[in-house]
Formats: sequence, structure tokens, C-alpha cells
Amino acid sequence: MGELINNSNCTIAVDAMGGDFAPKNVVLGSIQAMKENPGMDVLLVGRKEDIQKVLAEEGLSFKAENITHTDQVIDMHDSPTAALKSKKDSSIVVGAQLVKDKKADAFVSAGNTGAVMAAGTLIMGRIPGIGRPTIGATIPTSLGGICSVYDAGASVDSKPRHLFEYAILGTIFAREIRGIQKPKVGLLSVGEEKSKGNELTFETYKLLEKSGLNFVGNVEGRDILKGEVEVILCDGFVGNIILKFAESVPTFLKAKLKAYADKGIINALKILAFKGTLKEVLKDMDYQYYGGVPLLGVNGICIIGHGSSTPLAIKNMVVRAKEMHEKNLIQKFEEALTTYADK
Amino acid sequence: MGELINNSNCTIAVDAMGGDFAPKNVVLGSIQAMKENPGMDVLLVGRKEDIQKVLAEEGLSFKAENITHTDQVIDMHDSPTAALKSKKDSSIVVGAQLVKDKKADAFVSAGNTGAVMAAGTLIMGRIPGIGRPTIGATIPTSLGGICSVYDAGASVDSKPRHLFEYAILGTIFAREIRGIQKPKVGLLSVGEEKSKGNELTFETYKLLEKSGLNFVGNVEGRDILKGEVEVILCDGFVGNIILKFAESVPTFLKAKLKAYADKGIINALKILAFKGTLKEVLKDMDYQYYGGVPLLGVNGICIIGHGSSTPLAIKNMVVRAKEMHEKNLIQKFEEALTTYADK
Repeated sequence: MGELINNSNCTIAVDAMGGDFAPKNVVLGSIQAMKENPGMDVLLVGRKEDIQKVLAEEGLSFKAENITHTDQVIDMHDSPTAALKSKKDSSIVVGAQLVKDKKADAFVSAGNTGAVMAAGTLIMGRIPGIGRPTIGATIPTSLGGICSVYDAGASVDSKPRHLFEYAILGTIFAREIRGIQKPKVGLLSVGEEKSKGNELTFETYKLLEKSGLNFVGNVEGRDILKGEVEVILCDGFVGNIILKFAESVPTFLKAKLKAYADKGIINALKILAFKGTLKEVLKDMDYQYYGGVPLLGVNGICIIGHGSSTPLAIKNMVVRAKEMHEKNLIQKFEEALTTYADK
Repeated sequence: MGELINNSNCTIAVDAMGGDFAPKNVVLGSIQAMKENPGMDVLLVGRKEDIQKVLAEEGLSFKAENITHTDQVIDMHDSPTAALKSKKDSSIVVGAQLVKDKKADAFVSAGNTGAVMAAGTLIMGRIPGIGRPTIGATIPTSLGGICSVYDAGASVDSKPRHLFEYAILGTIFAREIRGIQKPKVGLLSVGEEKSKGNELTFETYKLLEKSGLNFVGNVEGRDILKGEVEVILCDGFVGNIILKFAESVPTFLKAKLKAYADKGIINALKILAFKGTLKEVLKDMDYQYYGGVPLLGVNGICIIGHGSSTPLAIKNMVVRAKEMHEKNLIQKFEEALTTYADK
């Protein structure tokens, strides 16, 4: 990889090989992000010839020095930690390293989620005071806002101390990026009472109670979509299942509507007339508008996208990464960890 | 409680004091169930004067000897195990005892869930071989059927052996009550691969693999609504959160539709025109059609309903209890536990 010249005020490294429709969707989304954000630079990390092929096909121009060539590709079936060792010249490893080396301000990837998490954690390192980095599930709510559920799959056996860290990271993210002054933090459990839950919730409750965070106590499964609490904490096993369940709701609704339409021509016409409206109504549940989820707790900005990311999703991820950089999120996390650890 | 005369072929004890709209909804639902099922008797267990007041108000007649008077009421705020000791003359304790004493064939209650679970477990006892009774979440699926998720909240720290028991109970229930010859059993985890999960899933996987059940391996959060697997296993902490999340989806959709309608008169008219259709489409997600959830693994038939049970929900619970009795579910559970324990 050659010397990078960066005269822009912000440089985002993007994994050109990440996702089911790479490099095409990545190239399209990245270029769109640059168009809409003058002064922001994108480094496309991946196979130069594959990237150039897409540029030629789409009739797009892109500075050659902003393509960081890598030979290897970590695919969806690779074991994350093994791939990190065996594929050192992959877009994921090199992309994370660019941030570590301060040659890029953030790394964005729609590739193998486990590998991106591992690369972020092992290459960028963790913020001092963080035991486990976390990814949040972004869930739309009845109130029209967003609820973030941490952890959504970075760990499967989070400890109380980790949930406490997620609470701090989630609070700062909601404050800085979503503009919520005092984000409410809830602990996901099987009842609202402090006495309802399991060992993990009992111990975590104690830490949160005296944390100085805006902790509102236990919340239940039904509170996630309500929107009254902006940051919800749970073990990554639970969060991952909720995230995937929530993502499957639109498909379920479409199946139900189809079954209804199949019952007769009148039904079919009713559904047909409502199609556009429903699409609009369900827009909030469409992951591509959120783009991806940041890996919080690592010592650098890293955003992980869905394997099926569209160009729009990629664009939104790049823009989000830029915003996180401009708002000095990493420094704010560090400050908050000191503040709340003192309590 | 007086001597009970039972000449009918099936007697269901119903907790007249259970639920937010008791005894009214319970009385109405029970009488409707009896009307539709000649030969089935209902014993209403609760405060005689309260029950008779409802009967008078509604102009209904009900055999006086089928009211089992109890003085005490376990309410939603009572601690389950404490209430069982301090309120021995409550409808929940007496109702469970009627089944234990073979004076009723089943007990149905929309009262304090924890207290009904405790009464079922401690008074009726467990089926030999069962470590932990379980309640299942009934989730409608894209295919038009039902997926049952065990456990949905009877335990918060289920062990591998318990999940194995849930698999047997769930299989027999799906076969006998839903008529599915070889119900598919899935283990809820964070990935399809055997290697994805936590300690609980790894150990449970081993037990299920050699069980002789129709085990299809790990399933993910997105598979619950798909409907390809009829019995899904998880810890009660996870299942309870999924159940409550799923139950909150219709409210979320209504809020989204309302927000859309509020944007202007055209939008409002579109939503108005679609209201009936949507209601029909979402009918499957309405808990009252399922009525309640059976407490499986106890040595007697016990069905627990939602606190806000409507008369229809109560009726469906009573009818389901009758069906479980007529199909000899307890005996079939016992046989299955022997069969699969041998493997």
C-alpha cells in the first residue's frame, strides 16, 4: 500500500470488498457520499482491478490514489480470528490498520461482521477502560425516534461490567449523534421490578443505580418499540435475537398481506391500493436508512453494515462515520468513561 | 368447599377472580364455552357473591353447585410463593387443588401468572422426569401457522436439561393439539452453525442431537416468524422478552399508521380505507384467539391467560383445556419422557 496524501478535512476508509454486492454497491454509495459532502475523502480498500471495472461500467471517475489495493478477501464463511491472521492483505485488515495508523479517520465495512469486529478490536484496540466493544441494534419506535439496544451480538456472554460500559457508550452516542440531551437508559428484563430478572440483571442494576447515568430501571420486551427509553441494555445473545426478530417483521407483514390478497380479487385490490402507503409506513423499519451500526468501544471509528447493503446504506454509513469523526466521539467516550467510573 | 357432584364427561375449574376484568369476563367466557360444548362442565372458583352479581346483571343462569366459593384473592401485586402460603382459600390455590384432588380435569386462570405457575407446580406437582415446567409463547408465522417458543418465562435460568424437556413437551403438544406429525424443533441462537451460541446452546445442542426428536439445529431470531420450525427452544429470560416484543408489534404498527394519517387529509383517508383490512391481517397477532398458554410439565392440565383476557380469550382457554384433557396430554407427556429419555 502506497503513501496516502490526505489534504481533506476527513478521510473515510471503505471496505470495497464487503457485502453481497461488492464492490459495485460500495463504489456507488461511496461516490454518492463524496458528492454530497465536499471536503470528505473516501479511500476505497480492495482489489484495484475489481474497483476500476465498476468505475468503467458505471462511467464514474475516482482518484486512483484513493484506491488502496489489497489482494485478499475475507468472505462471509471465513472464521473471523483465523482470517485476521491468514489474510493480512485483506480489505478488512488493511482498512482497520489505516485508522490505527491515522491514515484514515474511520473505517466502514459491510463485510463479514465477525471479522470487522475482530479487526476493529484487535487492530484499533479498545478505548482504555472498555472490556468489550459493542454493536447496537437500531430499532424504530412508536414515537418516531430510535431505540438502541446494546449489545446486539458483539458478545454472547456479557458481564455486568460490560453492560455498564455499553450504558456509557450508548448514552454518549445518543447524546452526540441523535441529539438527546439526557438519554434514558433501561435494563432489559422480564419485569419492571428490580427483583425481576436473572443474575446478570441483578448485578448490572446495582452498577447502573449509582452510575450517574439517566437510568430508569428495568424495561421489558414490550418497551423496546415504545420509544420512551433510548438506550436499552442486554447480553449480546439476547440483543442479537431481538435485532433479527425485529428485522423479520416487515417480511412477516408482507406475507400476511399476500395471504389476504390471495383470498380473492376484492382483497387483492384493497392490498394493491394500500401498497405505497404501507411501504411509506414501514420505511422506518428499513435498515438501509440507518446504514449500519458503529462498533463502540474500539479506539477508532468503525461502522459495520448489513451484508446486503444497498448503495444508499453504504452512503449513509460513510456519512455517519464522518459525523462521528467530526464530533470527536472517541474523545467523548474517553471523557465519559472517566466521569462515570468515578461514581 | 362443598362436595362436588360431577356427572359430566369433563370438568374445567376456572379462576373467576383472575384477570383485570374478573369476574365478569371469566363468567361470560365460561358460560359461552359451556353453551358451545354440551357435556362439559365449568366450576367457577371465587367469591360467590361477586359471581352471582355478574350473573344477575347479565341475566344469566348458572348452577349454584358449580360455584366453588373462596374468600381470598391473589392479586397482580402479590408475591407468588408468599401468596400461596398466606392465601390458602384463594381461587388460584383452590383451583389447582381441585385438579390435584381429581375433582376437576383442568384449571384455567387469567390471574397472577407467577402465582398460577407456582400453584400448578407446587400443588399439582411435576410429571416424573420434569425438572422445570414451562409456558410457551404462541407466535403466528408467515406460513399461516403457529410457532411455540419455550420457555416464555417460567424460568429465567433454564439449564440444558430443561431445554431438552421443553423440546419433548413442545413436540407432543404440537403433535396432539396442532396436528403436526413430526414437529420441527429448533434451538434459538445467534447463528445457524452449531459453533454459534453460548454455553447453554452448546450443551443443549448435544442433548438434542441424540434425542430422536425432529431437531433441525440452531435457528435465529429471524426464523421465529418464518414458520418453518414449530418448536423453538430458549431460556425463559430470552423467550419472555421475545413474547412481549412480539405482542407489542401491532401497537407499534398502529402508531406508525396514525403518524402517517396525521400528515394530511389524503393520508388519513388512505388509512381509514385500509383499517378493516389491516385488522383482518393482524388478527393472527391477537392473543385472544389463542386464549392462553398451557403450563406444561405439571401433573395436571393448567392454562394461564393474559391479565386483560376478554370473554373470548377465556372461552378459548376453557375449550383448549377440555381438548388437552380429552386427548390425554399428561399421559402422552409421560410416555414421551420415557421414550426420549432412553436415547
